Amino acid sequence: MMHHLLEALRHVVGATNVFTDGDLSAWEQDWRQRSLGKALAVVLPGSTDEVAQVVKLCADYRARHPDSGLALVPQGGNTGLTGGSTPDDSGRQIVLGLKRMNTVRELDAANLTMTAEAGCILQTLQETAAQADLLFPLSLAAEGSCTLGGNLGTNAGGTQVVRYGNARELCLGLEVVTPQGEVWHGLTGLRKDNTGYDLRDLLVGSEGTLGIITAATIKLYPLPAAQLTAWAALPSLEAAVKLLALAHQHLGPGLTGFEVMEQFALSLVAKHFPAMRMPFATEPSATLGSPWHVLLENSDHESEAHARERFERLMELALDSGCVVDAVVAESLTQARQLWHVRESIPLAQVKEGPNIKHDISVPISRMVEFVRSTDDALQALIPGVRLVNFGHLGDGNLHYNVQAPAAMPAQDFLQRHEDAVNRLVYDAVTHFGGSISAEHGIGAFKLDYLQTYKSPVALGMMRAIKQGLDPQNLLNPGRVVAA
Amino acid sequence: MMHHLLEALRHVVGATNVFTDGDLSAWEQDWRQRSLGKALAVVLPGSTDEVAQVVKLCADYRARHPDSGLALVPQGGNTGLTGGSTPDDSGRQIVLGLKRMNTVRELDAANLTMTAEAGCILQTLQETAAQADLLFPLSLAAEGSCTLGGNLGTNAGGTQVVRYGNARELCLGLEVVTPQGEVWHGLTGLRKDNTGYDLRDLLVGSEGTLGIITAATIKLYPLPAAQLTAWAALPSLEAAVKLLALAHQHLGPGLTGFEVMEQFALSLVAKHFPAMRMPFATEPSATLGSPWHVLLENSDHESEAHARERFERLMELALDSGCVVDAVVAESLTQARQLWHVRESIPLAQVKEGPNIKHDISVPISRMVEFVRSTDDALQALIPGVRLVNFGHLGDGNLHYNVQAPAAMPAQDFLQRHEDAVNRLVYDAVTHFGGSISAEHGIGAFKLDYLQTYKSPVALGMMRAIKQGLDPQNLLNPGRVVAA
Repeated sequence: MMHHLLEALRHVVGATNVFTDGDLSAWEQDWRQRSLGKALAVVLPGSTDEVAQVVKLCADYRARHPDSGLALVPQGGNTGLTGGSTPDDSGRQIVLGLKRMNTVRELDAANLTMTAEAGCILQTLQETAAQADLLFPLSLAAEGSCTLGGNLGTNAGGTQVVRYGNARELCLGLEVVTPQGEVWHGLTGLRKDNTGYDLRDLLVGSEGTLGIITAATIKLYPLPAAQLTAWAALPSLEAAVKLLALAHQHLGPGLTGFEVMEQFALSLVAKHFPAMRMPFATEPSATLGSPWHVLLENSDHESEAHARERFERLMELALDSGCVVDAVVAESLTQARQLWHVRESIPLAQVKEGPNIKHDISVPISRMVEFVRSTDDALQALIPGVRLVNFGHLGDGNLHYNVQAPAAMPAQDFLQRHEDAVNRLVYDAVTHFGGSISAEHGIGAFKLDYLQTYKSPVALGMMRAIKQGLDPQNLLNPGRVVAA
Repeated sequence: MMHHLLEALRHVVGATNVFTDGDLSAWEQDWRQRSLGKALAVVLPGSTDEVAQVVKLCADYRARHPDSGLALVPQGGNTGLTGGSTPDDSGRQIVLGLKRMNTVRELDAANLTMTAEAGCILQTLQETAAQADLLFPLSLAAEGSCTLGGNLGTNAGGTQVVRYGNARELCLGLEVVTPQGEVWHGLTGLRKDNTGYDLRDLLVGSEGTLGIITAATIKLYPLPAAQLTAWAALPSLEAAVKLLALAHQHLGPGLTGFEVMEQFALSLVAKHFPAMRMPFATEPSATLGSPWHVLLENSDHESEAHARERFERLMELALDSGCVVDAVVAESLTQARQLWHVRESIPLAQVKEGPNIKHDISVPISRMVEFVRSTDDALQALIPGVRLVNFGHLGDGNLHYNVQAPAAMPAQDFLQRHEDAVNRLVYDAVTHFGGSISAEHGIGAFKLDYLQTYKSPVALGMMRAIKQGLDPQNLLNPGRVVAA
């Protein structure tokens, strides 16, 4: 029977865009290589109409064969971190890859919007905007390979959220194929549209479980006259929270980035990338030894000179108030890129140091210091010598609070023995401080069990009712975000 | 039977907080006095727990008496413009007034958030924030009497959307009583939380049909060092669109307000409020005769001097490029308030001029000029001599494109003969230009029929599925936003 379905799918998208044999691991394995599934097929439609036909065929098949387990798993750049876009190992799930749909349909400079298809690479969108002297501010480590559809499906975050918000806040309209194979033509460049329920924001972050995003209209911003980067060494995390308040007050919306790094995270970069140019290279010992570091970005619509003056004034105030012990404002774009490169090398340095337990958590900024102090202590009590690789987007209250084995403990032992206990300790603490167990990566398959523990039953019930209402067959991405 | 229900409700909220007799028109009639309903009762709970008990009692009653027509109509300040918060005339709907729930529960300055109950008056929230040197930027004409719950329930817009977004974008967390009488404790001050579907944004703008918002955590901003207002006279609407682009480029996020007014709208203010001080008072004829006027606001985190210099530089550029013929930057807060007062008096001047057909539409800014030109022409062709009172939030593409009878035509005749045809002409045009028939006021009861025509059937189907999933009894605010 499934043979006929595959034939019909080939007829829709072309035989060369359906894969069933050979090495499909590029689609079947998640980016972190934590799970390897087995797809019934990989189908790569080239248009919204083809996506709709594929979904319709599968929905019809599923209606005739309710026990077939047939399902569709939408996939963009396959850079997700929670197993949300790769198939399970049943061999009954079809990967629906959107990467062929990569047309920028329209750039409307006067309206400050761009309409692009789901398969567009994020970096391409950034560049397309920049060519029109405009800014698309979504920015994250995977931008060279992640896609707009995936960014919206997971409500991606990144490094500019403190000013521009998450992917959701950058999206004005969507084109979506429903679980029934209909097309919702919801592309709109309107800043205001109160005609009914907010279907757009419901679809954004639903990780492909409520519909398949095929295109979106996104917000653009005038390109700032200058974007400057600064690096500051701080005596404590408390000082970083104070610096954040100071930066908000003095730069207002000019503050477009505020990343925090604990000294140990930087020491891993220095250890594993010895050629990398670290900040304060001329006076390493004192400043690099500071327990905390912050990378700030200031965007200015007046001039570079004005941006520099405002930034330097902020740093003077911070030095005077004692919340910064040393600071440097990058003198050139090259130097700014070097500073960002240090920040962005932390995850890779961590990989080189060995497997670790990753968290992507958020807590209110006002409770950040207390959260880190008490959770650090509790983890040390649980596993003496455990090493915390703490860094992230402090401007948004979002930490990648990662836990590395004690130096003497083999990493695999550590993971096997402690992973679940460490996760529960951290998530309990996050919950205690009013935080979230997934700030920007989503739930996918990997965090679904934890969600049942840490999300309120009332909210879970509402989510199930919505899923049931919109996708009663559970055709789209089953086993992700909502438990059956 | 209903007698027992009312007794039980009195038991929950106290007999003095349940009204069934006497003049209930303050709750039964909408603010524009377009509909007068008949409530079974007005119930005023004082806490979230009381709201939950009231809903539970009504849900249970409704389950036992499915044909009773019993329903709940949540109401805040009753300042809505689309009949979304007043009961129908069946005498079976209970008005659930939230105004007793008016506590500011927490202001967290370090986290830039405030948690407040649904019945808090918007202006109180603005003032509470200002006392902590912070800004809650939601601002609209009804701010002295509208409530936070209503603002969120309708996703209110207003005059600062160009920079800060609608009410939805200012909300981080919600506490909600579900149609089953359960409480979803979704209050959170997190900027990032990707743990499942975006229930918050689904509830915001759902006009009380999916749940009852009892409290919210909202975003605050550092108070700018200066907020300056300018008034510019322009040769055309096209020039206003050009000025907007120039202002975006030069002020960046400093641009916090951009209101447009056609000359005729201002002439009504001058006619009906002759004591009002108009801009350019010293040189009235030439400048006030300009066909279009713009009110701009510039917020600056550096200083008033800097804000003024940037604003004056923008106006010079605009004068040089010919898109502005005259401009003034307010010299004092008093003068700024006078300028805003002129803008805000347009709706009242319109009332004095006589009944008219109001629209609250948006179109992409890039299509604004074409939309206004062609729709003005089409309306003149339909009703020669018809007068357009055109003003609104051009920065968001949102116009209050109102249609007043020809000077010689009695207003009531005009409404009776032309209202539906005018609405359809305007909404057809809006749809043609990719716009929205309700930019910021919502759908309520008044626009529900139009929604069926102008919203896509796929989107309407998704909305119905969500309503059915979350409120299968159709207990909350039936006949609003979604058709049964």
